[in-house]
Amino acid sequence: MIRVTVWNENIHDKKDEVKAVYPEGIHGAVAACLKELDGVKVHIATLDQPECGLPDEVLNNTDVLIWWGHMAHDKVPDELARKVQEHVNRGMGFIGLHSAHLSKPFRFLMGTSCTLRWRDGEYERVWCINPGHPIAEGIPPFFELECEEMYGEFFDIPHPESLVFLGWFRGGEVFRSGCCWTRGLGKVFYFQPGHESNNSLNNPYVQKIIRNAVRWAAPVNRREKLDCPNPIPAEEMARQGMDIGWY
Amino acid sequence: MIRVTVWNENIHDKKDEVKAVYPEGIHGAVAACLKELDGVKVHIATLDQPECGLPDEVLNNTDVLIWWGHMAHDKVPDELARKVQEHVNRGMGFIGLHSAHLSKPFRFLMGTSCTLRWRDGEYERVWCINPGHPIAEGIPPFFELECEEMYGEFFDIPHPESLVFLGWFRGGEVFRSGCCWTRGLGKVFYFQPGHESNNSLNNPYVQKIIRNAVRWAAPVNRREKLDCPNPIPAEEMARQGMDIGWY
Amino acid sequence: MIRVTVWNENIHDKKDEVKAVYPEGIHGAVAACLKELDGVKVHIATLDQPECGLPDEVLNNTDVLIWWGHMAHDKVPDELARKVQEHVNRGMGFIGLHSAHLSKPFRFLMGTSCTLRWRDGEYERVWCINPGHPIAEGIPPFFELECEEMYGEFFDIPHPESLVFLGWFRGGEVFRSGCCWTRGLGKVFYFQPGHESNNSLNNPYVQKIIRNAVRWAAPVNRREKLDCPNPIPAEEMARQGMDIGWY
Amino acid sequence: MIRVTVWNENIHDKKDEVKAVYPEGIHGAVAACLKELDGVKVHIATLDQPECGLPDEVLNNTDVLIWWGHMAHDKVPDELARKVQEHVNRGMGFIGLHSAHLSKPFRFLMGTSCTLRWRDGEYERVWCINPGHPIAEGIPPFFELECEEMYGEFFDIPHPESLVFLGWFRGGEVFRSGCCWTRGLGKVFYFQPGHESNNSLNNPYVQKIIRNAVRWAAPVNRREKLDCPNPIPAEEMARQGMDIGWY
Repeated sequence: MIRVTVWNENIHDKKDEVKAVYPEGIHGAVAACLKELDGVKVHIATLDQPECGLPDEVLNNTDVLIWWGHMAHDKVPDELARKVQEHVNRGMGFIGLHSAHLSKPFRFLMGTSCTLRWRDGEYERVWCINPGHPIAEGIPPFFELECEEMYGEFFDIPHPESLVFLGWFRGGEVFRSGCCWTRGLGKVFYFQPGHESNNSLNNPYVQKIIRNAVRWAAPVNRREKLDCPNPIPAEEMARQGMDIGWY
Repeated sequence: MIRVTVWNENIHDKKDEVKAVYPEGIHGAVAACLKELDGVKVHIATLDQPECGLPDEVLNNTDVLIWWGHMAHDKVPDELARKVQEHVNRGMGFIGLHSAHLSKPFRFLMGTSCTLRWRDGEYERVWCINPGHPIAEGIPPFFELECEEMYGEFFDIPHPESLVFLGWFRGGEVFRSGCCWTRGLGKVFYFQPGHESNNSLNNPYVQKIIRNAVRWAAPVNRREKLDCPNPIPAEEMARQGMDIGWY
Repeated sequence: MIRVTVWNENIHDKKDEVKAVYPEGIHGAVAACLKELDGVKVHIATLDQPECGLPDEVLNNTDVLIWWGHMAHDKVPDELARKVQEHVNRGMGFIGLHSAHLSKPFRFLMGTSCTLRWRDGEYERVWCINPGHPIAEGIPPFFELECEEMYGEFFDIPHPESLVFLGWFRGGEVFRSGCCWTRGLGKVFYFQPGHESNNSLNNPYVQKIIRNAVRWAAPVNRREKLDCPNPIPAEEMARQGMDIGWY
Repeated sequence: MIRVTVWNENIHDKKDEVKAVYPEGIHGAVAACLKELDGVKVHIATLDQPECGLPDEVLNNTDVLIWWGHMAHDKVPDELARKVQEHVNRGMGFIGLHSAHLSKPFRFLMGTSCTLRWRDGEYERVWCINPGHPIAEGIPPFFELECEEMYGEFFDIPHPESLVFLGWFRGGEVFRSGCCWTRGLGKVFYFQPGHESNNSLNNPYVQKIIRNAVRWAAPVNRREKLDCPNPIPAEEMARQGMDIGWY
């Protein structure tokens, strides 16, 4: 069982042009695409809920957190963003979609400015450059998005541990569109498509990638605390048959 | 269903001191530890079989190839080693154990000399430094091997995409003991324990790691040929609604 | 000309046991080892100076910042740590020594908890595992430190882009002792030796490594701002012969 | 002093259409762009010379080998390619230009098929995605090539340790155009522009990149042999004050 929390700012979603594309909200579209995945339980959280939708009880019961935000990044308190970061360091998966590149949790996890070049949407081609990666399962050499907001390099992120997708935009730009990192015991995936007024989240390949990413980001091991448990000599510990602890 | 082929040189295995540790041979010990893994079918191949145990029919039906070799690396023809390499590039997983570091398939896949520092066995402590990695599932911060042949740095391998285990040896050496790479669509894992006259392959953590590695290395996508299929303009192709092919 | 700022907390340095090892302070020892490096200008900054020793004028004129801190990490305001982080993102090099692993600038740059296992000092052997790396120039396969505080895995850092040194401790631990990352246009090196009451910073190999790291971390390109300059179509820009800007 | 050997197949170079672009041959164009680099000595080697232009004396006196080949990859004996590979493992730098992606030395160093998608030349935009990398020194966010042969993904190479440039092609493809790896003590850079009948090698940014790459790839340390020197216990060795050797 993978417990997924889909977090959405849920502000753009109230405009007509966005409703036309995502009648159930961006969170609704993401949640819908996860229904096909066996063994997944989806919870929806939005900024307008108490504690921004992420009280401890929710975070403590989340295996993978999917994040969509844009105009209200600043409304998420630093303290909450740091708590999300700590949960990732302890094992929770984190998937940032599109404009989540400037969200606080993502920026805190990356350690860079996460800035990029951007302009209005147009034809994009998403190329798979790592077809053996779990997130690429069932994805062809490339697929097309009729219209998606242009995100271009230089994208100020740490060198990805795995680079799975590259975006090609008609206007002349390229982008590292699908990137993986490890942070502590947690896995982080950033995926570029998903502008609020385009309909990329309804694209079957985008949906498949999100499902693949959820399975990939699900925790393997978790830890209770960030501190390492024993400051005593490991060899002494072994001689005495003491417990070697857990990270 | 993951179809695993365990390949063993099967030469040391005929000596009494090795039989005492691995009565069914090294291949038998590896195969035994895979029995606990659901959805896995194990085939055993040895150097003394026709075509060194790896005719096309076997390679074509292998998802993950586990390799143990030492004194007869040269008995594997270059042509066969290159065929194994090609299968990995097309998606087959490859797990090299211990002295497989100098096997032809591993060296061809790495592109380096794969040499290292070595001497007789002694106490080793294997540390997990990437507890969020799938191969580390269920593995504690470290575990102990009473006696294992010392392999030490400088280990001439390409920078691992993921480094999961480090080995500590009482005599003063360290080693990158568990390393992951991608080659084409295939995944490669090298794991240092497994000398023929020590009994590391009977250690429950070593066995768990091999099981984890098999699941991790199982192919996600595969391709028929190494060549990319279309030298025609991708945009033209898209305009005409042509098939975008498969890698 | 590389302009190096050596920043030191300068608190331990006032104790007799530390003075015995580093009569000019830790910053003095680091500065001394840079004197052999041509084309380097060294500035010393300490926590007890105004603005913690790092007013804008100093940061704006620093190419590589070396950081030593331990018991007063919290005395560095978040705002200053973030300013250091931004300077790195814009191109400034950052070298964290020993207990700087928990300093705010380093943690902000990494995005992880940067926790580790530790205990009192003992014999360490530092192994070079990347002898072709610029920071390894002139460093033998390993060198010895008679007594250095034990830092052991699991060290919660992002996967290093280059891993240059591994530490072996007599008590049974290993450590990723020399690690490189890129953050924005800046380079980051973490190096484990350097406890205040041991004398590792007087070791000729440690000194050589710090000199190598300074040259490696010196900026190649820099940028004025973190934002990308142009949200207009690159192709349009090219057609009009407009300036392509600078990151 | 960096001793650079520029190796060229020198076959296309005899055709009129190539002479029109590179009157001194491709090797001549590469050599010319290195003249601006202080402390560099250039030697030219071609396939039609004895021992394919690379007798031991030449390889033993080469710090960085630049390689251009296309239609005669098979004319380079496996044995020579392996010798080049060994020199790289021992510290020599290797820069592969354009169609060198299928040359034997490059494929042996990579361990993958190195295949890619291709078609006739057209407008390319080369984006810099790692502006802090030494090879990016002085290179703007992107530059343009009026016409360059299209090389597109999936490019079957190992995950680059550093990815410096991405290529955008008008027809809809992207490419990892500038990639870095370490192999043993040697550094490898692959750079995509340089088709024989286009004139990319006369582009000032391409030339600057080649100069930067030569400095980056120059050896830091070298070793005489691939074997590690001592199979005796390191601790014993230390107790006896023995020489710790050199890799």
